[in-house]
Amino acid sequence: MPITTPLISLLGIKHPILSAPMDIIAGARLVAAVSDAGGFGILGGGYGEKDWLARETAKLKACTASFGIGFITWSLAKQPEVLDIALDAKPRAIMLSFGDPKPFAPHIKSAGCLLICQVQTEDMAKQALDAGADILIAQGTEAGGHGASRTTLDIVPAIVDLVAGRVPVVAAGGIADGRGLAAMMALGASGVLLGTRFYASVECDGAEDAKRRICKANSGETIRSSIFDFSRRRWWPSPFTGRVLINDHARKWRGREVELIQNLDVVVAEYAVALETGNFDIASVIAGEGVGLIHDVPPAGAIVERIITEAEQIIAGRRNS
Amino acid sequence: MPITTPLISLLGIKHPILSAPMDIIAGARLVAAVSDAGGFGILGGGYGEKDWLARETAKLKACTASFGIGFITWSLAKQPEVLDIALDAKPRAIMLSFGDPKPFAPHIKSAGCLLICQVQTEDMAKQALDAGADILIAQGTEAGGHGASRTTLDIVPAIVDLVAGRVPVVAAGGIADGRGLAAMMALGASGVLLGTRFYASVECDGAEDAKRRICKANSGETIRSSIFDFSRRRWWPSPFTGRVLINDHARKWRGREVELIQNLDVVVAEYAVALETGNFDIASVIAGEGVGLIHDVPPAGAIVERIITEAEQIIAGRRNS
Ligand SMILES: Cc1cc2nc3c(=O)[nH]c(=O)nc-3n(C[C@H](O)[C@H](O)[C@H](O)COP(=O)(O)O)c2cc1C
Ligand SMILES: Cc1cc2nc3c(=O)[nH]c(=O)nc-3n(C[C@H](O)[C@H](O)[C@H](O)COP(=O)(O)O)c2cc1C
Repeated sequence: MPITTPLISLLGIKHPILSAPMDIIAGARLVAAVSDAGGFGILGGGYGEKDWLARETAKLKACTASFGIGFITWSLAKQPEVLDIALDAKPRAIMLSFGDPKPFAPHIKSAGCLLICQVQTEDMAKQALDAGADILIAQGTEAGGHGASRTTLDIVPAIVDLVAGRVPVVAAGGIADGRGLAAMMALGASGVLLGTRFYASVECDGAEDAKRRICKANSGETIRSSIFDFSRRRWWPSPFTGRVLINDHARKWRGREVELIQNLDVVVAEYAVALETGNFDIASVIAGEGVGLIHDVPPAGAIVERIITEAEQIIAGRRNS
Repeated sequence: MPITTPLISLLGIKHPILSAPMDIIAGARLVAAVSDAGGFGILGGGYGEKDWLARETAKLKACTASFGIGFITWSLAKQPEVLDIALDAKPRAIMLSFGDPKPFAPHIKSAGCLLICQVQTEDMAKQALDAGADILIAQGTEAGGHGASRTTLDIVPAIVDLVAGRVPVVAAGGIADGRGLAAMMALGASGVLLGTRFYASVECDGAEDAKRRICKANSGETIRSSIFDFSRRRWWPSPFTGRVLINDHARKWRGREVELIQNLDVVVAEYAVALETGNFDIASVIAGEGVGLIHDVPPAGAIVERIITEAEQIIAGRRNS
């Protein structure tokens, strides 16, 4: 029995699985692969790299399936003009995370786009609803990349209760298989947003060594901190921190953030070289606590199929334990 | 359709809901109420208060339903003789948490008791399996009281995969309603262990004001730290910390644990008075992140019924969102 939720008709998709906008590693190739498989691919607008966005959205004009484009809200606020590049590509939805969506909502909605807001607390959810969000993503601390402190099991039912059916709620953070999708639907979510799982896919534009490290890492081997942001001079607003694989750099600086800032020039220089040369003992692999569930790098479409098949079996009760 | 899992026949119960051993507030009254409702009540052996244990186990001799008794392993190791008081009461199972169960396993199992071990990491799970555990409880950081750092959504599938069907896995931490039970079953758990939800029940021997505070607290208003342990001179081994409601005392000392220890005598004296007088602005209310889902103080049996009814509806697909 196929899974149906209100999210599916709203987004015009077949399966309630969204791939996360991930910096510039969720490019047109990943988005098309996810959307073509019946999920909802979201392009990573990231910090607003204009050339990258123009190039990737151009590729997406060939994509006939429904897709989205995501932005880091506080970063978009510094160069609001990149939103037009995104809207030009006629996405079904714009996803905004990490900041007040209100300044951008009218423009997005008047372009006929849906507004998806990723939130980490009840207050942010209220702000997003006030701005006219059509879909909320409740993101738990397990998530790869930026986020806050509340856990997925905690924040998902909290947001579902707050929303009280007004808009669909999507769960994010630590979900990487069909068990996770089925569990989140039991909590009242209408679908899931996955980042780390799609990082380890063929079509993701991440480094091969980074994908290998995600496959090798066990659950419990990630850390949420500001170390990697400081190390590339990105000053994220509170309460956001970033989850990455624990590597030599994280081990060296964890709990010593003040000292890191005192030595910022040296650290930033060292980190830039590591990024340049793909040295992931120093440069961070952005990844969530779901890494323990990820052991291979299949095509993104196969990931969508696999998760749906497993979740459908669980929901049909064929896999009671 | 009633929920059936391997746990049910193993424990001789009707519903896969266990109430947690909670210090000396999970007394015979709560245990009998949960077990009589078809769940599995577990008496709180706590730190091994002999008189309390003798009195409460005596009351349980009248209980015809299946029940358990729980101990804090590292504390039991200091006075192993209290285990005999527990075994005398003919529990179906002894639950051990926080420490190596091996020294106690033979005695428990030769008394015809099942051994339940609560674990927070894969290594602890391996240790428990080596000791002959019949049931594992995978506890996430959302849990009220002592625990560690991995989240429930992370640790439950990790332990399910590690155990690979050898013994049933029970999920704990942040679960307080039928959605949580259904979600944990989707992750592969055979049942759930609930502490905080049963704290706010009629039969729990906790203070009425503490129960009121649990009902009033929102999700996000708890903290995991060592502040309340230090404040009563309990030196818990690493990696364990305790989750409590954020109150004036927690706000005052959070992030200042070293300073607290430097002022230990004064703080301990103040804290003892607060405990004595039931001043929960200073004394801690031990509670988990599920507090946001708890708004009333019903009989424990009604809690069991409510959770089962909700979970069964979700599993039957009557509440798809
Ligand atoms: C490599 C990576 C990069 C990310 N970059 C962004 C981003 O640019 N914008 C954004 O809104 N979220 C970003 N996220 C967070 C995702 O939106 C999402 O919340 C998260 O991936 C979900 O948790 P999961 O990684 O456990 O699936 C990123 C996540 C990862 C793993
Ligand atoms: C008030 C309270 C006291 C607790 N005391 C104990 C205890 O004495 N021994 C133990 O093994 N666990 C104890 N726990 C932890 C529980 O075993 C269980 O893991 C936890 O309650 C599950 O999370 P929840 O509170 O979110 O339901 C306690 C929990 C609470 C809330």
